[in-house]
Amino acid sequence: MGNADCVYPTSNVEYAHRVAIPPPQPFVKSLKYNLKETFFPDDPLRQFKNQPPSRKLILGLQYFLPILEWAPRYNLEFLKADLIAGITIASLAIPQGISYAKLANLPPILGLYSSFVPPLVYAMMGSSRDLAVGTVAVASLLTASMLGNEVNANENPKLYLHLAFTATFFAGVFQASLGLLRLGFIVDFLSHATIVGFMAGAATVVCLQQLKGILGLDHFTHATDVVSVMRSVFTQTHQWRWESAVLGCCFLFFLLTTRYFTKRRPKFFWISAMAPLTSVVLGSLLVYLTHAERHGVQVIGHLKKGLNPPSFGDLVFVSPHLTTAIKTGIITGVIALAEGIAVGRSFAMFKNYHIDGNKEMIAIGTMNIVGSCTSCYLTTGPFSRSAVNFNAGCKTAVSNIVMALAVMMTLLFLTPLFHYTPLVVLSSIIISAMLGLIDYEAAIHLWNVDKFDFIVCISAYVGVVFGSVEMGLVLAVAISLLRVLLFVARPRTFILGNIPNSIIYRNVEQYPNASTVPGVLILEIDAPIYFANSSYLRERISRWIDEEEDRIKSSAETSLQYVILDMSAVGNIDTSGISMFEEVKKITDRRGLKLVLANPGSEVMKKLNKSKFIENIGQEWIFLTVGEAVAACNFMLHTCKPNSMKDDQSEAYNNV
Amino acid sequence: MGNADCVYPTSNVEYAHRVAIPPPQPFVKSLKYNLKETFFPDDPLRQFKNQPPSRKLILGLQYFLPILEWAPRYNLEFLKADLIAGITIASLAIPQGISYAKLANLPPILGLYSSFVPPLVYAMMGSSRDLAVGTVAVASLLTASMLGNEVNANENPKLYLHLAFTATFFAGVFQASLGLLRLGFIVDFLSHATIVGFMAGAATVVCLQQLKGILGLDHFTHATDVVSVMRSVFTQTHQWRWESAVLGCCFLFFLLTTRYFTKRRPKFFWISAMAPLTSVVLGSLLVYLTHAERHGVQVIGHLKKGLNPPSFGDLVFVSPHLTTAIKTGIITGVIALAEGIAVGRSFAMFKNYHIDGNKEMIAIGTMNIVGSCTSCYLTTGPFSRSAVNFNAGCKTAVSNIVMALAVMMTLLFLTPLFHYTPLVVLSSIIISAMLGLIDYEAAIHLWNVDKFDFIVCISAYVGVVFGSVEMGLVLAVAISLLRVLLFVARPRTFILGNIPNSIIYRNVEQYPNASTVPGVLILEIDAPIYFANSSYLRERISRWIDEEEDRIKSSAETSLQYVILDMSAVGNIDTSGISMFEEVKKITDRRGLKLVLANPGSEVMKKLNKSKFIENIGQEWIFLTVGEAVAACNFMLHTCKPNSMKDDQSEAYNNV
Repeated sequence: MGNADCVYPTSNVEYAHRVAIPPPQPFVKSLKYNLKETFFPDDPLRQFKNQPPSRKLILGLQYFLPILEWAPRYNLEFLKADLIAGITIASLAIPQGISYAKLANLPPILGLYSSFVPPLVYAMMGSSRDLAVGTVAVASLLTASMLGNEVNANENPKLYLHLAFTATFFAGVFQASLGLLRLGFIVDFLSHATIVGFMAGAATVVCLQQLKGILGLDHFTHATDVVSVMRSVFTQTHQWRWESAVLGCCFLFFLLTTRYFTKRRPKFFWISAMAPLTSVVLGSLLVYLTHAERHGVQVIGHLKKGLNPPSFGDLVFVSPHLTTAIKTGIITGVIALAEGIAVGRSFAMFKNYHIDGNKEMIAIGTMNIVGSCTSCYLTTGPFSRSAVNFNAGCKTAVSNIVMALAVMMTLLFLTPLFHYTPLVVLSSIIISAMLGLIDYEAAIHLWNVDKFDFIVCISAYVGVVFGSVEMGLVLAVAISLLRVLLFVARPRTFILGNIPNSIIYRNVEQYPNASTVPGVLILEIDAPIYFANSSYLRERISRWIDEEEDRIKSSAETSLQYVILDMSAVGNIDTSGISMFEEVKKITDRRGLKLVLANPGSEVMKKLNKSKFIENIGQEWIFLTVGEAVAACNFMLHTCKPNSMKDDQSEAYNNV
Repeated sequence: MGNADCVYPTSNVEYAHRVAIPPPQPFVKSLKYNLKETFFPDDPLRQFKNQPPSRKLILGLQYFLPILEWAPRYNLEFLKADLIAGITIASLAIPQGISYAKLANLPPILGLYSSFVPPLVYAMMGSSRDLAVGTVAVASLLTASMLGNEVNANENPKLYLHLAFTATFFAGVFQASLGLLRLGFIVDFLSHATIVGFMAGAATVVCLQQLKGILGLDHFTHATDVVSVMRSVFTQTHQWRWESAVLGCCFLFFLLTTRYFTKRRPKFFWISAMAPLTSVVLGSLLVYLTHAERHGVQVIGHLKKGLNPPSFGDLVFVSPHLTTAIKTGIITGVIALAEGIAVGRSFAMFKNYHIDGNKEMIAIGTMNIVGSCTSCYLTTGPFSRSAVNFNAGCKTAVSNIVMALAVMMTLLFLTPLFHYTPLVVLSSIIISAMLGLIDYEAAIHLWNVDKFDFIVCISAYVGVVFGSVEMGLVLAVAISLLRVLLFVARPRTFILGNIPNSIIYRNVEQYPNASTVPGVLILEIDAPIYFANSSYLRERISRWIDEEEDRIKSSAETSLQYVILDMSAVGNIDTSGISMFEEVKKITDRRGLKLVLANPGSEVMKKLNKSKFIENIGQEWIFLTVGEAVAACNFMLHTCKPNSMKDDQSEAYNNV
């Protein structure tokens, strides 16, 4: 019963573009290509190609120690700039270091130790010119809350300290191995929205914790959520110390005023950079002169003179608390890494140089491994300090060396000066730094641009503030991943129509002037076809066909004869997806419709070919563009009688 | 310094297609649309539209009880077919039910109970015409291993039994709620590849467990992995019973022969369907006549006469084992559901009718809830039994009713006949059924078509066989999800070239005859742009630009001036993706290149517009097709002097 007129002129030049089936590649070759694209997208070995061995050695050393690359070009002008920047960040680093160490329930001196050795290591290995190394509030708080669940820092300070070093060691090992194993993309799973919400939540929590210092309370909850903290604060109103509170508010006002001023006039960056040290000096003087330490104003007390003692022997690898140390190390390590990389990258973007994420991870990781052996706890590149460094005009990582030397001098000679520093000043310094982390404008931007990102951001915030820091992080990452999975599980399908006066076919929702083609239903699938969406797509495609047939029935149009699937956006397909196509083919056959594919990509063509689906559908029914597919369908519609087509359909096409 | 010649003629008709920015939609409306597409892709309420209330009520009842829909059309011819099919599956259900109950460490009579009530419930509520309800080996084994970890079935049989009912109850509740909450897509995350590997692994494990029965061992390991089982078998070689082994091998040979025969001649389906019952009868007779039960051949023993006793009072909701019961219920429930839905769907596809996944879930869930209150354990639609039902020519779910009635008669009158049935025959029946589940051809197909699916399949198999059933499942699902995430995290980017004699631009790897355009780099991005891939894409795009510039340097071509990003396959974008574009814009600006977008979809345009990136790039640099973008670039390349362009680039375009 073959209808001779219905044979489609495959030789016709106008429709001669055929969809290519990529030549089969050996498995090993394609595996190698895929691994390279996954783990070495930046092709770091490119510069080593075609070089003599000696040059390769130098390049390799320079890869791991970038200082070898830039040190020979270093000059006096750079040094001048770096000196100013280094002294500025040192004046910020000293009070901040002490404050954050208190926040982590660690001896204050650790804050100074951590601003001495790690910056020196980073100066050798880091590739950022603007990153200023130091401890950060969020990681300090996390250390306190995660280790605090296991060991009480007041009851067993030695074990707690050793666990902190161990956690730092594992953080370093984890960070460095992420870099060495080229798994840096794990950090990418902390999206911008997650970080905005998480940082704001952590800043809120850190500020709440400072109520202890501001109100001069002795006992305070170990939990970080807002409910516990508020209960802790309001159940001991009789313990509040007004002297402490007044002092705290005054310094906070001073710090916030200088920050506000600097924000409006960035040239005077040094005012806000120096403000914390000024507060410490003023506060210490005040306490020393008024003996306020006897009237309820707590002070830091004795700080040991001298440089970092070695702490390699303090690392505990056999204790029953090892799991906690590893867990704390990994979580704080990832968060510190995310901040360090993001900060490094943004300043590199400003100054037009390139930062290699994996290399940075190795640098930050090594710095923490070395730090954990020299009485330091977790360090990274905090945003606030790096911004001061940048504004102070730093040129290279030498500013970190200058800072380290300044801290060294402090450790050697100036620690007794901090004896009378009131804790409430440290709390004010922390609060003032934290308020800058609550980026409500970014949250508003997220709401305006992408509601889902806003949900992720808010859930991170709510999780941190009402649950715990870890819960907020896990919640936000889980929701972000769910979004990716939902995108794949529920891809969009669109009806395409013809843009007037063209052979272009586009989504009729986006282009209302696009007109559908009578007798032809053109669908675009918007995502890779995987097991997670194959049943959905089958259901959705049949529903489109149902709806189209219903619509046609109610009007007097040509009955539906062709279903064209535009595969341009289908990046990949798996075996479930291929089964889905086979089922869709059966569904369309049953209804007397012809299934046509347009523009499948190379991956898709390869798999459709291997699974014999191309033979099933007929290669002549796969077109390079939707336009060509429609032209072919129109040719058939107008050459063949519709009735004979529907009845003899299978035979007619088998004869092609 | 604006160069008048460089103004691009936007009024030119040839290039007049503008990319539309979809009109802003109220948040609630788009949320509603998205929720509908996510949870109601099949639009189940469509048939209720524009119907009078009485009709709506009837349709609603028919939705939940499909029997109301087909019963009025039921006729004698259907009944004849269903009678034959029902009796055939009953003859399979009785021995299989007893065997699987033994596998689950439950009293054998539960296997018969479970083939009585649940089929009746399913006949009312199920929408499949071919599904034969019954217990399944894998879920039985899982019940045994998960509950067995908590309670020893031999030491505390009563508690174990009650936990099995409770687990069944929760499985039912979970299944029904998945259906009611329209979350059926969770089952889709068990991909075809996962199921092939998992089923083969479970079948291997179940066969290994039967060594206990075949070798007549009294003591046997509770673990299911191959290492433990082999150790258990070979440490007690002196306990092996040759009588039992010989009997087992004979029956296994008989069963496999009938299966092989039926496979080659599907018309004689009843031979393999009757074989298990024949084996039971022959085995029982043999034992009865030779008194083999006294020579090491274990028999079933006493089976209580009578119908299912109620067991609602036995459900334990307060026990310390509740968590185990819930966990077992959810895991077995999901696996049973996946099998039931897949089986229902494949036969519906054969016979050209439609199965609503969510409706089926409600039916299977209700059947298990009712079952758990009437002394049944987990049931679903096993593949083997449904295939027999289909081959026996069943027409409707009445075949399930016939089976239930046959089982009822057995329960009322025939249970004493099973007293002498040897356990080894049950083992042979299980092994013979399980061997059919090892679908090595499907695994070979996966290897040929999609290596990644093969890895998923093998890891499920290895996880089940060497670890545990749950581990295999978790492993396979985790790898499947990792694949989806990897697709999003590492999207492909291609260079596009012009297909000769056309304005079509395609991937030069797939179409080697496509030629690149001098001075223009055209890149296609193959996936949605999300936080997970935005850094990767930024790196990859700059590497493409680097490589292209290197290539041009070594040849004598026109220097690179334009980078066109083809966004056809970018289904969505989030705020991290938009930041990525902003950074890419900076990178290209810095290198004196012009960034051009082609064919962004509606979601992408909406978000680029909201984030003001369109203003940043200039709307005149966003084109509907790559062809039009290239035409515009070529126009500019040939109209403007390249040098003046590179220098005055920003001003020149600001004047447009």
